[in-house]
Amino acid sequence: MQIDINCDMGESFGHYKLGNDLALLEYVTSANVACGFHAGDPLVMSETVKLALDKDVAVGAHPSYPDLQGFGRRKMEMTAAEIEAFILYQIGALSAFVHAQGATLTHVKAHGALYNVAALEMPVAEAIARAIARFDQTLIMVVLATSPLMIEAGQRAGLQVAREAFADRAYNADGTLVNRKLPNSLITDPVKATEQVVRLVKKGEIMASDGSILELQADTVCIHGDGPTALEIARHLSETLAAENIKTCALQKQGRN
Amino acid sequence: MQIDINCDMGESFGHYKLGNDLALLEYVTSANVACGFHAGDPLVMSETVKLALDKDVAVGAHPSYPDLQGFGRRKMEMTAAEIEAFILYQIGALSAFVHAQGATLTHVKAHGALYNVAALEMPVAEAIARAIARFDQTLIMVVLATSPLMIEAGQRAGLQVAREAFADRAYNADGTLVNRKLPNSLITDPVKATEQVVRLVKKGEIMASDGSILELQADTVCIHGDGPTALEIARHLSETLAAENIKTCALQKQGRN
Amino acid sequence: MQIDINCDMGESFGHYKLGNDLALLEYVTSANVACGFHAGDPLVMSETVKLALDKDVAVGAHPSYPDLQGFGRRKMEMTAAEIEAFILYQIGALSAFVHAQGATLTHVKAHGALYNVAALEMPVAEAIARAIARFDQTLIMVVLATSPLMIEAGQRAGLQVAREAFADRAYNADGTLVNRKLPNSLITDPVKATEQVVRLVKKGEIMASDGSILELQADTVCIHGDGPTALEIARHLSETLAAENIKTCALQKQGRN
Amino acid sequence: MQIDINCDMGESFGHYKLGNDLALLEYVTSANVACGFHAGDPLVMSETVKLALDKDVAVGAHPSYPDLQGFGRRKMEMTAAEIEAFILYQIGALSAFVHAQGATLTHVKAHGALYNVAALEMPVAEAIARAIARFDQTLIMVVLATSPLMIEAGQRAGLQVAREAFADRAYNADGTLVNRKLPNSLITDPVKATEQVVRLVKKGEIMASDGSILELQADTVCIHGDGPTALEIARHLSETLAAENIKTCALQKQGRN
Repeated sequence: MQIDINCDMGESFGHYKLGNDLALLEYVTSANVACGFHAGDPLVMSETVKLALDKDVAVGAHPSYPDLQGFGRRKMEMTAAEIEAFILYQIGALSAFVHAQGATLTHVKAHGALYNVAALEMPVAEAIARAIARFDQTLIMVVLATSPLMIEAGQRAGLQVAREAFADRAYNADGTLVNRKLPNSLITDPVKATEQVVRLVKKGEIMASDGSILELQADTVCIHGDGPTALEIARHLSETLAAENIKTCALQKQGRN
Repeated sequence: MQIDINCDMGESFGHYKLGNDLALLEYVTSANVACGFHAGDPLVMSETVKLALDKDVAVGAHPSYPDLQGFGRRKMEMTAAEIEAFILYQIGALSAFVHAQGATLTHVKAHGALYNVAALEMPVAEAIARAIARFDQTLIMVVLATSPLMIEAGQRAGLQVAREAFADRAYNADGTLVNRKLPNSLITDPVKATEQVVRLVKKGEIMASDGSILELQADTVCIHGDGPTALEIARHLSETLAAENIKTCALQKQGRN
Repeated sequence: MQIDINCDMGESFGHYKLGNDLALLEYVTSANVACGFHAGDPLVMSETVKLALDKDVAVGAHPSYPDLQGFGRRKMEMTAAEIEAFILYQIGALSAFVHAQGATLTHVKAHGALYNVAALEMPVAEAIARAIARFDQTLIMVVLATSPLMIEAGQRAGLQVAREAFADRAYNADGTLVNRKLPNSLITDPVKATEQVVRLVKKGEIMASDGSILELQADTVCIHGDGPTALEIARHLSETLAAENIKTCALQKQGRN
Repeated sequence: MQIDINCDMGESFGHYKLGNDLALLEYVTSANVACGFHAGDPLVMSETVKLALDKDVAVGAHPSYPDLQGFGRRKMEMTAAEIEAFILYQIGALSAFVHAQGATLTHVKAHGALYNVAALEMPVAEAIARAIARFDQTLIMVVLATSPLMIEAGQRAGLQVAREAFADRAYNADGTLVNRKLPNSLITDPVKATEQVVRLVKKGEIMASDGSILELQADTVCIHGDGPTALEIARHLSETLAAENIKTCALQKQGRN
């Protein structure tokens, strides 16, 4: 049994500091690095990429709608052509920092509202997949494990997909995430977050917020770097997985098909 | 005898249109494409790169200070580390569009105030050279032909440099460009601009605004795409060079050492 | 019989020029000045306000979603509190330039996607009305004449509303505007645009794109300053209205109750 | 004896939180609220203004160069006309939120690099003063107490000026502030910061970093809201001033002539 632990990183901006990347890098196997559109700036990207590679953590791009003030969490009405170009731009920008360190970008995961919209709307999912495939056919596209549509978009573009579940987010019975505006949307208790992941890896299921059971296969689980207990979750999860003999392993090393 | 004709392109932004790229591409051999920091956006970059490659014009990055409102023409006090990261970001972003078309970026030319500052301040010139070399050691760095400092910065970083002169800008006797705020800073007459280039290629000299003669070796001459007579200059220059048996030729094909 | 002719103005940005404000100001009675969020910058706003006041044209604010790259024409998912604060910010910023010229802001008209959304969604219309009323209860809120919802939102906030129709846009049979992406959405023929306005003022009706007749009362008609024939429409409309003894008159001088 | 204690506030931006405004408002008499160009956004401005007015703290505008990524701490080469327009824009935007609460803006203090440049360059100081005076002749312009040039610019524009000293910044012997890049530029010890203020109010002097004594008259002292010990300084300073029978009092209540 193996699982990738991914974390959104590099979300500081100029004078504004966010997250605890250095500490989190001890526990995760993949870093999704913000590309300057919802968070991050060139200096932050440069430093984050270097930190991640120093810890042998796989680096992926975390592109977003162009909405710094809204942290990429607001849906914007963009055409598929716009989305494709905006994603390609961000992948290229982030890749430059990885390349400058002598390494290679491994994956792409859309951020926030763009990810949520892509999980529901095929033209958006396809635009993202097309941007990734045009940049590099060997990149892995991270998709919501409960979105068949997003999985299909990635596969049709000839990409490997990595199905993602969330350690720190509650699920609705239909497999969507509980809306962030609702009180129980976030799982902040490290023990509960860890239980959700262990159950997922061992049994291929998640308990939804109404107590029902979702069947779910995941290749990677996400911890949000800006969550209030992100570091505690990462540490407890990492230790528990080790104790349970579940290997944490970056996506490109998992030997998926 | 040979010379590259380069032109700044892709300077539209969203609803705002600037320049006449499609027509200019008939006459130039290199396009410096804006990277979204002083002009350009992902959609404009995508389209401009495609247009240039369709015409077999070499594509370079045209990075800038982050100053859309000032069109990159205002000096900003940035550290060398900031400049290096901001340039690397922009090269990567532009390169993604070139790469997605199956082509390769050929050169990098800093824009506006950043170019002007780099011609005078070694730490800035070095930061630019370092960003280019870290991205790709085979990229050509376009430098002001009258700035020994900028030439040295490029060469020390192990880069090929291409010395640039301007078809449509007047020179001071010391080799600097006449300030844009002065009335005679721009050469808008296609005949005069062409004469300046032909003299440069044939004799290795330019007549400064005070009538004195500057000795100058150039590998490439620039036409500013947003100039009022850019297209007329490009056409007249192209025809005249052909008539004079001066070959126009992109930088990477010039066989420089 | 009287009508206000309003025009969106001040939509240049930095190096980017848009529209023909100076010429248009000869023919319009109200200017809606961009506030820097979809177009305009502080220098453009300063100059546009001065030009309009010099021509005795009423100055209003033209606030937008924060989306310069999309020219404010993309819907963004913002909360009512966000919209209210973003509108208040923009009204204040524009008002400063009016105030600095010793004049007073007369009206507010939301721009682009924000206007379109407000015509359909009461919380958005109310947020706009609330921002206007909080800034100055005597400001006139320009509303889509075919949106009872938007009219109601303005009136409930205690504001005078001015019902707007479009000289240069085609209407659907249900009173909405034909989508800009459709070929016949814009009326570029000055004669047709003028006929639409004259019919509206004289008979209180507009012919929709399917030939059906919409009953419509309007206090103001809009000419889009960035339309390809904006100046020709303005001139022909202005001359025709004069010949028809229809007075053009800014909103605050119309003596509405 | 009396002094105003001012603090830069409202420096959060979207998802990014900065400072501890609510707690600081217990101890200060004036709040300089960021206007969205180096920090702050419309929602943050709305909330900050409300918080300050609820605590009966005077609200001023804190305009900046347009440089969110650099937090307004990088000099930009802008013309006097640009600076004047950019300041007027920001004052108007902030004023809208004050006005919407039924209150009146009391003062304007330039931020960061703009403030530092204005202390040294008369055209910049004059552009700021002109923007303030054009908006409202009764606004107080906060100036660096050790910059005769800035004082003169304000007075020539017909404005009241308030001379500012810093509780948490070290001074050079010539009255300028020790560069932020140097290790001893910030005074983080609440006791030392308080001693600097008490000495200033009682004796009209400050001890420079080299031990020399600067004679200095100040109407207001600044605590930087983003300083690591801002709250501790504010509390200790406030209590000490009370114990020393020095009244803390907002600028417009000081009865200056």
